[in-house]
Amino acid sequence: MSIVLGPNQYGKAEVRLVRVDRDTARHRITDLNITSQLRGDFHATHESGDNTGVIATDTQKNTVNAFARDGVGSPETFLLRLARHFLTEPQVTGGRWLAEQYGWERIATGASVDVAAGPGTTAGSGADAGGHDHAFVRGAAERRTALVHADDSGLTVLAGLRDVTVLKSTGSEFSGFPRDRYTTLPEVDDRILATDVTAWWRYAPSFTETAGPAEYDRRFAAVRSLLLETFAQLHSLALQQTVFAMGKAVLEAFDDVAEIRLSCPNNHHFLVDLEPFGLDNPGEVFFAADRPYGLIEAAVQRSENGSEHPVWSTIGGFV
Amino acid sequence: MSIVLGPNQYGKAEVRLVRVDRDTARHRITDLNITSQLRGDFHATHESGDNTGVIATDTQKNTVNAFARDGVGSPETFLLRLARHFLTEPQVTGGRWLAEQYGWERIATGASVDVAAGPGTTAGSGADAGGHDHAFVRGAAERRTALVHADDSGLTVLAGLRDVTVLKSTGSEFSGFPRDRYTTLPEVDDRILATDVTAWWRYAPSFTETAGPAEYDRRFAAVRSLLLETFAQLHSLALQQTVFAMGKAVLEAFDDVAEIRLSCPNNHHFLVDLEPFGLDNPGEVFFAADRPYGLIEAAVQRSENGSEHPVWSTIGGFV
Amino acid sequence: MSIVLGPNQYGKAEVRLVRVDRDTARHRITDLNITSQLRGDFHATHESGDNTGVIATDTQKNTVNAFARDGVGSPETFLLRLARHFLTEPQVTGGRWLAEQYGWERIATGASVDVAAGPGTTAGSGADAGGHDHAFVRGAAERRTALVHADDSGLTVLAGLRDVTVLKSTGSEFSGFPRDRYTTLPEVDDRILATDVTAWWRYAPSFTETAGPAEYDRRFAAVRSLLLETFAQLHSLALQQTVFAMGKAVLEAFDDVAEIRLSCPNNHHFLVDLEPFGLDNPGEVFFAADRPYGLIEAAVQRSENGSEHPVWSTIGGFV
Amino acid sequence: MSIVLGPNQYGKAEVRLVRVDRDTARHRITDLNITSQLRGDFHATHESGDNTGVIATDTQKNTVNAFARDGVGSPETFLLRLARHFLTEPQVTGGRWLAEQYGWERIATGASVDVAAGPGTTAGSGADAGGHDHAFVRGAAERRTALVHADDSGLTVLAGLRDVTVLKSTGSEFSGFPRDRYTTLPEVDDRILATDVTAWWRYAPSFTETAGPAEYDRRFAAVRSLLLETFAQLHSLALQQTVFAMGKAVLEAFDDVAEIRLSCPNNHHFLVDLEPFGLDNPGEVFFAADRPYGLIEAAVQRSENGSEHPVWSTIGGFV
Repeated sequence: MSIVLGPNQYGKAEVRLVRVDRDTARHRITDLNITSQLRGDFHATHESGDNTGVIATDTQKNTVNAFARDGVGSPETFLLRLARHFLTEPQVTGGRWLAEQYGWERIATGASVDVAAGPGTTAGSGADAGGHDHAFVRGAAERRTALVHADDSGLTVLAGLRDVTVLKSTGSEFSGFPRDRYTTLPEVDDRILATDVTAWWRYAPSFTETAGPAEYDRRFAAVRSLLLETFAQLHSLALQQTVFAMGKAVLEAFDDVAEIRLSCPNNHHFLVDLEPFGLDNPGEVFFAADRPYGLIEAAVQRSENGSEHPVWSTIGGFV
Repeated sequence: MSIVLGPNQYGKAEVRLVRVDRDTARHRITDLNITSQLRGDFHATHESGDNTGVIATDTQKNTVNAFARDGVGSPETFLLRLARHFLTEPQVTGGRWLAEQYGWERIATGASVDVAAGPGTTAGSGADAGGHDHAFVRGAAERRTALVHADDSGLTVLAGLRDVTVLKSTGSEFSGFPRDRYTTLPEVDDRILATDVTAWWRYAPSFTETAGPAEYDRRFAAVRSLLLETFAQLHSLALQQTVFAMGKAVLEAFDDVAEIRLSCPNNHHFLVDLEPFGLDNPGEVFFAADRPYGLIEAAVQRSENGSEHPVWSTIGGFV
Repeated sequence: MSIVLGPNQYGKAEVRLVRVDRDTARHRITDLNITSQLRGDFHATHESGDNTGVIATDTQKNTVNAFARDGVGSPETFLLRLARHFLTEPQVTGGRWLAEQYGWERIATGASVDVAAGPGTTAGSGADAGGHDHAFVRGAAERRTALVHADDSGLTVLAGLRDVTVLKSTGSEFSGFPRDRYTTLPEVDDRILATDVTAWWRYAPSFTETAGPAEYDRRFAAVRSLLLETFAQLHSLALQQTVFAMGKAVLEAFDDVAEIRLSCPNNHHFLVDLEPFGLDNPGEVFFAADRPYGLIEAAVQRSENGSEHPVWSTIGGFV
Repeated sequence: MSIVLGPNQYGKAEVRLVRVDRDTARHRITDLNITSQLRGDFHATHESGDNTGVIATDTQKNTVNAFARDGVGSPETFLLRLARHFLTEPQVTGGRWLAEQYGWERIATGASVDVAAGPGTTAGSGADAGGHDHAFVRGAAERRTALVHADDSGLTVLAGLRDVTVLKSTGSEFSGFPRDRYTTLPEVDDRILATDVTAWWRYAPSFTETAGPAEYDRRFAAVRSLLLETFAQLHSLALQQTVFAMGKAVLEAFDDVAEIRLSCPNNHHFLVDLEPFGLDNPGEVFFAADRPYGLIEAAVQRSENGSEHPVWSTIGGFV
């Protein structure tokens, strides 16, 4: 018996890259946070500090920046390009490339200015309709995510989103659960249901073999819309039911999505007891709690898929 | 000489209140973070722990919740109502009530689903056009803010916004600054200009004496739009010039805004040097730095205003 | 082919529990953040909202609190108790219980007050030597962690720590790495090495079958000390070498630690170029960067261990 | 009437400087976050983008780094040096220089390794007793702070601390407060009292005219110890009483501290109701809540001091 190096990876994390496409006066910006991690034969540096094979993390960062000179395309295609580059090195046998993308909208100008109340209200009907040529305002806190994983079996592409905060002010109940010595929760037939959706879906090879940046962008937008619309439309008997329905809707709509995983906190909104003040509270005044929170996590899969895909051990997360 | 109690205030901070207006099937939600702080004669509790006059912070929280039962209206009018309530207590001679409001948009459904690329892209032309009746998605990370301050001279109302992140991909330069022994910054005639706008503006009594919730909401939206549009339209020679122009535009447009203060970090985006890789970089690839950052803060006022208004010492911030 | 529920888990996250042991006038406090997640047969709630088998997350929270009435012991033994409780329910076939513990020190009083400079300097030689009976000051931001995982093969116990921030001001170099088109990093023979150590180690059954709270506490402290001392003593040729040495030292010292995994960002401290100001900089003035950062992650194992232990897919993290 | 520039300031924020003193093999590190802001005649840049007088924020950063080459001394003396430098420029008539300092302790080695339980437990009796020559571990999350303010009346020095988290597990009660329609809080004669102490104290000219780095360091440590010891020793009838007593103790002990201000959240720890589970809870099991929280803020002054000192409008905070 001896003590040995097990699984390992290394790289540069959170390279904050902003790419301006300025081929016309109407600029586009792509705002990314990119992590590159390599796997392979790196015993020498761990065991004796021999760095002969270590592609410096600084070099990985430089490569990200240099590749951006040619344009980013979609996050997925950009990561694939990085993966293929690093995999040409003999000591690199795999890796993990991750991107988070922040959303920006064009600042409304002139007649298109929207005077509706509320912070963050946006004008125009989408990222590219109207608005200023080169001035932008940051959109929602949510991020689009992408991950490319490489191992002996090839390249796998995940797409996802993080912290899409949604809330239903009715159309949610929770009852029928068992009551034991430690149960005090009352059953409710009308509650606020709120969560921050994090999801990852895995594209089948049939998609990744042909998709270009435009296909990845359109597919992301379509999956995001479907997740939100399902959250909105389903009358929910449990957050578990909503989570499963969201995932199922995506698999039903897109054959080339092989599976999807969701992680959804239950952001509790407690009805405030106003009785001590002589007031009723018919579902109108709520306290938005921070902690603790429920946490519902599930994978939705196709029955013909067999054992766990290795990519899931690399996302650093749920299930 | 003796040691005495100086200025003091106390209260409950960050009461997380979500109000659902459900008088029709088309719900509205108001999502607030409210702080209530009282000033007055509180010597006894400080000096001997005699709490006879101390309106418990828990009672302040309860009052916030109970008042929400009647509806919130605008943040400004809700805070005014709280202020007037607490000022009826004889030991309370002043106070400070603060609100932050989070933005929500209706989830798009059916044909209105937008399939444009990018996270956070919103469909519809505003908070109330189209979208689901009772399902919402959180908007931008920015917050609308309001503050009511009470002292011997009466009630003062500030409105504001925080962390409105904006970026111009061109139309900004910086040159002509002095060069001393410690100056290494090159002059640039085209750079990214990015900031997180925080602003507070003070309403003149002519506004607050008559404004209702709808006026506060409309005015907030109009000021926000004007700040953004000015940021977008001005060709900037310095972030200071942009900040002053933003404030000036608001005072020019609205006579009943007495003054405005802005605090704007300069979120540096450094052009990446791609020369070592044999590449040029004509304003396309940038590194978004975290720290340090520039910080530009200024008040824009009307010349007839005299000395500093006391409200500014209570906002817990800049200038 | 059909669409089916895959792996799933649910529970209550971040139950913030503070336990005061007050059997004598010399109180002890245990400050924990606990997450409980169950796995098993939960198809009905996902597929139709039938909650017959769903032990409410609120009930899980109540159970945590009720069990704390009997004392916490060590985080590991407390989680084991929770696991065994929930596993008595027929529909529960596994789960994941996680704890983070925050450190507190007794406030120094009287002659033991330490007047050395610097924030956070602590007096006394440990948590229980000297200091006040029931007044405490929060220690370092680092947290002690524990995880109990249950599946068909039984219970597995991990212990760990997060965000132990360490820095060497010399005794670190980095050279000998390959240079390609994208390499600009100079070789250095003296640099600052700084990281935030996150580690998880898995206890062998030989340990968990007999260990009580005191053994878990002592073992945690001994592993933490050994990790820090190894970081301090090793002359480092690469952060990879340091990470592997830290893990190896633990496996060498403790036969009943089966394996250990470490995740260590390389918190870059860049030597500031003072030449433009006519000054040298012999390793004295550094800029502590935020992003990007290197990220080094490795498992250190015993050679006789075979395939990957299933617990590692549940820690939500690295490798 | 016209629209004019009001109060303004600009500079570089959060310069992350780590200074290594390596004149002997026993290194010392000083870890600072420094902000420099200038005030004066900056109308031209605001009104027309004429930067002739604008000392670039990048130049301010460079100056911080260059000055660190000579050593930092204490944060207060370092900021004074920066202030005096920038005030030699004719357009600069004032400014604000701020430092936050992070604490580090030497890593224990050899026999001094401490095996007591709990994260963050430190060995040795202070920052410079025992421990490794050049390897350090980060201390508590709290920070030491310093601020130098310059205006027509000269230079003012504040010292302070932030986020010193303290907790008493007994010796605190709260009762005797008034009960109105909105009061539901029960009176308690034994509760947990917990807060994050933020304090700023102003040194009298008699101190700042002669103090060197060692005096500032010793005084900081002495004030910190006194604040903590007072928190620990006072039987508290209200957090207000504790806050006032902490400030009063400092003014009584040190004649050359002119005044002190404290801002202390009341970090509520709610006794969990275990009755539904057939259990009592004699002050042992608590829920540590996040929001809302009480917020107690007060100045403690000497009676002969007259009107408000102008420095307080610049700290960006309470009262």
